[in-house]
Amino acid sequence: MHELNRPFPWQDRPQGSTEIIWRYSQNPIIQRDLLPTSNSIFNSAVVPFGDGYAGVFRCDDRRRRMLLHAGFSADGLHWNIDHAPIRFQCDIPEIADFEQGYDPRVVWIDDRYYITWCNIYHGPTIGVAWTNDFKTFHQLENALLPYNRNGVLFPRKINGRFALLSRPSDRGHTPFGDIFYSESPDLCYWGKHRHVMSPLPDSWQSTKIGAGPAPIETPHGWLLIYHGVLTSCNGFVYSFGAALLDKDEPWKIKHRAAPYLMSPQTLYELVGDVPSVVFPCAALLDEPTGRLAIYYGCADTVTAVAFAYLDDLIAFAGQNP
Amino acid sequence: MHELNRPFPWQDRPQGSTEIIWRYSQNPIIQRDLLPTSNSIFNSAVVPFGDGYAGVFRCDDRRRRMLLHAGFSADGLHWNIDHAPIRFQCDIPEIADFEQGYDPRVVWIDDRYYITWCNIYHGPTIGVAWTNDFKTFHQLENALLPYNRNGVLFPRKINGRFALLSRPSDRGHTPFGDIFYSESPDLCYWGKHRHVMSPLPDSWQSTKIGAGPAPIETPHGWLLIYHGVLTSCNGFVYSFGAALLDKDEPWKIKHRAAPYLMSPQTLYELVGDVPSVVFPCAALLDEPTGRLAIYYGCADTVTAVAFAYLDDLIAFAGQNP
Amino acid sequence: MHELNRPFPWQDRPQGSTEIIWRYSQNPIIQRDLLPTSNSIFNSAVVPFGDGYAGVFRCDDRRRRMLLHAGFSADGLHWNIDHAPIRFQCDIPEIADFEQGYDPRVVWIDDRYYITWCNIYHGPTIGVAWTNDFKTFHQLENALLPYNRNGVLFPRKINGRFALLSRPSDRGHTPFGDIFYSESPDLCYWGKHRHVMSPLPDSWQSTKIGAGPAPIETPHGWLLIYHGVLTSCNGFVYSFGAALLDKDEPWKIKHRAAPYLMSPQTLYELVGDVPSVVFPCAALLDEPTGRLAIYYGCADTVTAVAFAYLDDLIAFAGQNP
Amino acid sequence: MHELNRPFPWQDRPQGSTEIIWRYSQNPIIQRDLLPTSNSIFNSAVVPFGDGYAGVFRCDDRRRRMLLHAGFSADGLHWNIDHAPIRFQCDIPEIADFEQGYDPRVVWIDDRYYITWCNIYHGPTIGVAWTNDFKTFHQLENALLPYNRNGVLFPRKINGRFALLSRPSDRGHTPFGDIFYSESPDLCYWGKHRHVMSPLPDSWQSTKIGAGPAPIETPHGWLLIYHGVLTSCNGFVYSFGAALLDKDEPWKIKHRAAPYLMSPQTLYELVGDVPSVVFPCAALLDEPTGRLAIYYGCADTVTAVAFAYLDDLIAFAGQNP
Amino acid sequence: MHELNRPFPWQDRPQGSTEIIWRYSQNPIIQRDLLPTSNSIFNSAVVPFGDGYAGVFRCDDRRRRMLLHAGFSADGLHWNIDHAPIRFQCDIPEIADFEQGYDPRVVWIDDRYYITWCNIYHGPTIGVAWTNDFKTFHQLENALLPYNRNGVLFPRKINGRFALLSRPSDRGHTPFGDIFYSESPDLCYWGKHRHVMSPLPDSWQSTKIGAGPAPIETPHGWLLIYHGVLTSCNGFVYSFGAALLDKDEPWKIKHRAAPYLMSPQTLYELVGDVPSVVFPCAALLDEPTGRLAIYYGCADTVTAVAFAYLDDLIAFAGQNP
Amino acid sequence: MHELNRPFPWQDRPQGSTEIIWRYSQNPIIQRDLLPTSNSIFNSAVVPFGDGYAGVFRCDDRRRRMLLHAGFSADGLHWNIDHAPIRFQCDIPEIADFEQGYDPRVVWIDDRYYITWCNIYHGPTIGVAWTNDFKTFHQLENALLPYNRNGVLFPRKINGRFALLSRPSDRGHTPFGDIFYSESPDLCYWGKHRHVMSPLPDSWQSTKIGAGPAPIETPHGWLLIYHGVLTSCNGFVYSFGAALLDKDEPWKIKHRAAPYLMSPQTLYELVGDVPSVVFPCAALLDEPTGRLAIYYGCADTVTAVAFAYLDDLIAFAGQNP
Repeated sequence: MHELNRPFPWQDRPQGSTEIIWRYSQNPIIQRDLLPTSNSIFNSAVVPFGDGYAGVFRCDDRRRRMLLHAGFSADGLHWNIDHAPIRFQCDIPEIADFEQGYDPRVVWIDDRYYITWCNIYHGPTIGVAWTNDFKTFHQLENALLPYNRNGVLFPRKINGRFALLSRPSDRGHTPFGDIFYSESPDLCYWGKHRHVMSPLPDSWQSTKIGAGPAPIETPHGWLLIYHGVLTSCNGFVYSFGAALLDKDEPWKIKHRAAPYLMSPQTLYELVGDVPSVVFPCAALLDEPTGRLAIYYGCADTVTAVAFAYLDDLIAFAGQNP
Repeated sequence: MHELNRPFPWQDRPQGSTEIIWRYSQNPIIQRDLLPTSNSIFNSAVVPFGDGYAGVFRCDDRRRRMLLHAGFSADGLHWNIDHAPIRFQCDIPEIADFEQGYDPRVVWIDDRYYITWCNIYHGPTIGVAWTNDFKTFHQLENALLPYNRNGVLFPRKINGRFALLSRPSDRGHTPFGDIFYSESPDLCYWGKHRHVMSPLPDSWQSTKIGAGPAPIETPHGWLLIYHGVLTSCNGFVYSFGAALLDKDEPWKIKHRAAPYLMSPQTLYELVGDVPSVVFPCAALLDEPTGRLAIYYGCADTVTAVAFAYLDDLIAFAGQNP
Repeated sequence: MHELNRPFPWQDRPQGSTEIIWRYSQNPIIQRDLLPTSNSIFNSAVVPFGDGYAGVFRCDDRRRRMLLHAGFSADGLHWNIDHAPIRFQCDIPEIADFEQGYDPRVVWIDDRYYITWCNIYHGPTIGVAWTNDFKTFHQLENALLPYNRNGVLFPRKINGRFALLSRPSDRGHTPFGDIFYSESPDLCYWGKHRHVMSPLPDSWQSTKIGAGPAPIETPHGWLLIYHGVLTSCNGFVYSFGAALLDKDEPWKIKHRAAPYLMSPQTLYELVGDVPSVVFPCAALLDEPTGRLAIYYGCADTVTAVAFAYLDDLIAFAGQNP
Repeated sequence: MHELNRPFPWQDRPQGSTEIIWRYSQNPIIQRDLLPTSNSIFNSAVVPFGDGYAGVFRCDDRRRRMLLHAGFSADGLHWNIDHAPIRFQCDIPEIADFEQGYDPRVVWIDDRYYITWCNIYHGPTIGVAWTNDFKTFHQLENALLPYNRNGVLFPRKINGRFALLSRPSDRGHTPFGDIFYSESPDLCYWGKHRHVMSPLPDSWQSTKIGAGPAPIETPHGWLLIYHGVLTSCNGFVYSFGAALLDKDEPWKIKHRAAPYLMSPQTLYELVGDVPSVVFPCAALLDEPTGRLAIYYGCADTVTAVAFAYLDDLIAFAGQNP
Repeated sequence: MHELNRPFPWQDRPQGSTEIIWRYSQNPIIQRDLLPTSNSIFNSAVVPFGDGYAGVFRCDDRRRRMLLHAGFSADGLHWNIDHAPIRFQCDIPEIADFEQGYDPRVVWIDDRYYITWCNIYHGPTIGVAWTNDFKTFHQLENALLPYNRNGVLFPRKINGRFALLSRPSDRGHTPFGDIFYSESPDLCYWGKHRHVMSPLPDSWQSTKIGAGPAPIETPHGWLLIYHGVLTSCNGFVYSFGAALLDKDEPWKIKHRAAPYLMSPQTLYELVGDVPSVVFPCAALLDEPTGRLAIYYGCADTVTAVAFAYLDDLIAFAGQNP
Repeated sequence: MHELNRPFPWQDRPQGSTEIIWRYSQNPIIQRDLLPTSNSIFNSAVVPFGDGYAGVFRCDDRRRRMLLHAGFSADGLHWNIDHAPIRFQCDIPEIADFEQGYDPRVVWIDDRYYITWCNIYHGPTIGVAWTNDFKTFHQLENALLPYNRNGVLFPRKINGRFALLSRPSDRGHTPFGDIFYSESPDLCYWGKHRHVMSPLPDSWQSTKIGAGPAPIETPHGWLLIYHGVLTSCNGFVYSFGAALLDKDEPWKIKHRAAPYLMSPQTLYELVGDVPSVVFPCAALLDEPTGRLAIYYGCADTVTAVAFAYLDDLIAFAGQNP
């Protein structure tokens, strides 16, 4: 998928900074009202596509319905988002009526792009669809039973089967949440469920955790960027951190950094429809240089991007016990 | 009540904007510390008065007691608010000791101004008083039993009786709330209670709703601007929307817009004593031009104004299923 | 209404007992399955009628719908209950579709029997109807807005107006509750709401209270038998006690007994669909002798009766500070 | 599996009774202290086995650990339960350490008995095992992700695949719960999840529902006996009812009875470790006569049996809208 | 304190029973209405006194105030309880007004009896008093700050200082609770607080625990009988168990039995004001024979006694890992 | 401790302002990322030290562990904070393993600096240590049992004993909280607990209150600056106010101002990890001039300073009933 002449969204680390990860100076890159009917655009997923980028965006409208829209960009920083939400093709009558969906992820496996998202079917569960052109989307069976959120596919089959991280939940603003692993021979039937990791008490990730972008394969295992939630006396605070999972048995954690990578600290992360949220859903990797652009939702309102080097993240995940 | 030489508070729609409603560029018009003892001034009601405007303002003091103050303005934008709170004249001993009150509305019916507010009498209920000069206020019987909030009178009798919208509540930060209609021959005894409308699931108005300014009579029915509340994982978000009620049986909804008219999006709406609140309590109509100035509280801290055209609001309410 | 030849339901105080109130030895008088479709029969109201007694009974069916049935008895102890629930005549379309109702009270005022009950109309509120034969029931406007329960009419007009006690509530198993007083010239419009009494901390009535049978007029004021609720670590406990209200201004308490009159202590009061409930809804008075038969629901499952002398209750209410 | 000389556990309907279902007069058939270390024995599953019966029993010990024991009976009424809990054979290291398990169901499919139960694996989920002798039990992969309970297999493959009902839950005393359907080609991977049915508001099944015994195939569809829970002000009340599911698409409800079949009404159902619970987990059918013996747990303490005729249950399910 | 001619309350283990602890066949020994004004008598403490026994009893009156009464018995089984509650002598004005108190313990140290109880002083805390005759009681400073319950003194000084177990709590029906140890040179100032033990997850003692009778000194350490609470979906269940504490550093646990000693299983333990409670507050030891009589409250309503041999309890505590 | 040549941190009251307390124009004086590993630095305590100032700072790291760091400043406004957290010397094995700590206070008594803080020992309680150089810190016994917070020592012995204010709490975000007084002869054993003051309903301090800086001795009694918390529908709001305590019996309130002194109103107080918090932990007094510098944490994120005159505060506390 990598093309040499595709511009990579990037800004160098600010002079004097020693941070592992730094924010784009022109954040947020997508404002809440980019669409005439949008209340907010955030928690969205982008991938390389053609000679630029494409993505699936969470666009809540002014009814506050949660909808998915396709979007395109030449440089990964300036985006055109379709005004009409995605209408999935689906020949399974029981699930064909898309109701609401949110927090999409996109990944290329074998020969097509797969989209997973939190799909409302008698409660939140993991919707699955594929596309080749970001115009027509083919919806498959929901991967799991409700109530589940943050379903994230690995970018290749593992041991010959599709592999999925998810976060079993309940019906509302779930106050708990572990990450689990499941696998499937065919994207229809799922099993061999394994526990991956739990929140850590007395930390930024003490209430619940959930996978972020699709895991990134490295020589040291799968790099997992994931969000974690702390419950303050004024509600949830969403930060994100990093871990390394075993390459062949990804439910086994090789390393997990204790500090967060990023917590909400700028005004656009601290103030919005849901204060104090940074929520990563996608990461672009420039393999030759190891540069990484991480896309994350801010305060459930806008979309921003931050930058890092893959090697730094691997070191961060591996060296913080 | 309309006088040609009374200046109307107004600012044209910003160039290029297609918004139905737009904020005053010098918002907030009333700061939290306008009074030497005020913690915040918001959720307040204004009406034409003399050759200018008068109003009843919710001024929480620095004990955080909720008090009502009278205020006056020549242009509807710059306000003088009495330093001393309103002391109601009341010859009913059981309710004569005003304790606390908040979220007033004011309306002219027949020959005087009526004020309704959330009155603390063994819990929140609907207080009623009248004035002719905004200096002396005569308190009547509470309209309803506790626990009730957001009592709003229609600006004329309907079928020969006073008509009231209210929002039955419980004792605290009520997590539910429908709008009901009641009527009275004499402002003392109330009955013929009718359900008007409920929150809508999965929307900006999913937790509770409450009437805002006094309904505005139009050829298409009563235009009701009302607030709605969504419960995020970090608390309540107050937006407002619009509906059209039947002229003679106002408990029947003719149209109800699905999107919100305004949600908290500016810093003064998102940040304050209660983050993420826009709460309308009054609307001035310039009948010849159809211009509308909507006064609303922001973040339970300050008072702002927004502008719109009545015809646009009617269309908005009627065309958004 | 009193007829000399109507048998009074009675059993003398057990020998050696010094209790003010004593249970009927053949309690419960109405079993849960008296009707072929009944799950439970309790919290019901009886009055003298013809040469015997009639009543309105709360009969929950096996769907656990709460329905009202009429019933008749020659001796006040053995009851025949209509198999079909009451179908109210009602010409007010908005409330004509009876949905569910519970905890009825019945009282004779002037020329007819009035029934009040907890009526489901967008939440619980106070339904009102009248009958002369316990066959045809005419439903009037709901007295109050939701959310309200335990509406109890006084057995005569006071100062020329109907008088009602009620207990404003919320939507569920309300964890608070004071008794209020309202009056009406016509049973349609209600006002002049007055607070009557609140729960007492650290007592059997610390969570909420509600009026029981229609108040009984005595030379010392209105005798009010009312239930009170305590929250134990295993849920609510419903007991009942007594107070004396001022004859002309019944929102003023003259005396209120600190101890309970009765708490759940027998197996049929402690065990059932809702453990630990005694809930009085009616009292028959034999005026010549001062004998009193109090009907109460047990554990939300069955109906029982207890006996006392009016003078003892007055003394109990008056002498327990 | 049916053998003519196997005695069927049965007692005729009591004379004069018109109940569809009636309790065994010597209930409970298994006392809480049948084992020297048992705190309680309930919510258990029995099947025909050899010339008698076998079962898997929930036996909570005096630490209040939830364990599964095998048991045997000649007549289905008197049971010997192994003193040692079942130790599952399992070659999947991640789940091989049985921690706790409860509420088993047993069903014969093709050539062996399958057991499903609520298995603790980082939360409750659906454990699966098989046996041929009730001595050696072979544990397979958990069917689903946590958090799930009340997994019940259909007694034959449907459309060539194993079929499972389950009730997605959360971590504690879940206050919600719908029944879902899933299918599997191999008992390892599960998918094609379908919603079956939800609680019904204002009824005995308003809080949550869950499948009971394995569905019984009838000419009218699958007869599903299921429990439903109502939340009173003193906690949960567990009753059970009946529905008929489509034979080929069992997620489609053909009929669902509105009344309950049985609610907790006897002392051993109303009083115990968890008051007010009847919880069916197994049903034996005597096909020639249509006699049915339903085994159910009582108050989370003891085990009882009730009797009915299959035709009556079908009629009950089909005729109560 | 031991006198040979004082009758010991005892009943032999029932024939055939292998239970470590067995209930008195005439339980409950104190009914709820032993006093004319008592609602319930339970959670009470007895000690040898003169040639019989004395005790301090929790007697809730019919207001449901929690009061302490002294009582006397010749045989430990039949009790006379003073009709008037204890009035403490106290020369500390801030705490001299006894408000309410409950769950007393009594212990002889050096030269007098000390009573500790849950004393209401701006919340529950540990009251302390002494007596020599159970007629005059001298109240000392509260041992600890609110919010605390279940304060139990060791029956001798340890390392020269008074020693106390307690259970820090919150204001209501505390859903957590560990046992802590504190010591004092003078019964006025307390410090050197040590954690002793916590609830155990997934057990009869998973929610909270609290010391029961005063610890009993044995060659194997201090035998601690303590209650533990499990939260079922229908509320709390109180059982009790046993542990052995180090003789010199009693905050160190030497052994702790995993099973409970007793859980609520009889009707008088399962049904009452608070269902499902056995709550031990005192134990009498007949040293020559090792016989033990354990007094415990039942369902927060009545008082019962159970019997065991000290050696059996030590073995039970020591042999159940 | 006062040295004439130590610069006092100060800024004159802004011209035209009549506020009793005013913020430093360069607030916050300590940013959240002053340390390379700090997430936030707030709720910290400073004292005169040498010819400048020293302090103990709450520095939460990026794991969100709560740690204490020493720091030094020449002018009280610019601070150097040690990169390594304080490691307490402690010879009490049970408490020697410092886990987490927060919200320190520092006070000079007799011959050394004493630090108190919220120390995690099986829950939050009051840790105590002393230092003479802010390099070596000697940890003593915890003053009180868990669960307690906001332990503040008086700056001298009272009646010959150490005196402590504290706020008994529960385990989480405690929704209640009164201030209590305790005393100790030796900083090891504590007793003579007295209630000082409670939250005030319907005010800025309606949920809980807690002592702030060490009380300041004045001719009019001890000036206590304390925080109070209001629960809005979007969480807690922390403000602070003032009271005067009796000099010899400091649990007796002489005056208590009804309004707050300061509430969160600037962006750095309203927005951060916990929105809407001003939390004072220290106050420096320039005795000759009566100037006061109050250090307070902002939004649980940064540290700020505000200025006032002691005489104004005394008047404020004394004249606002």
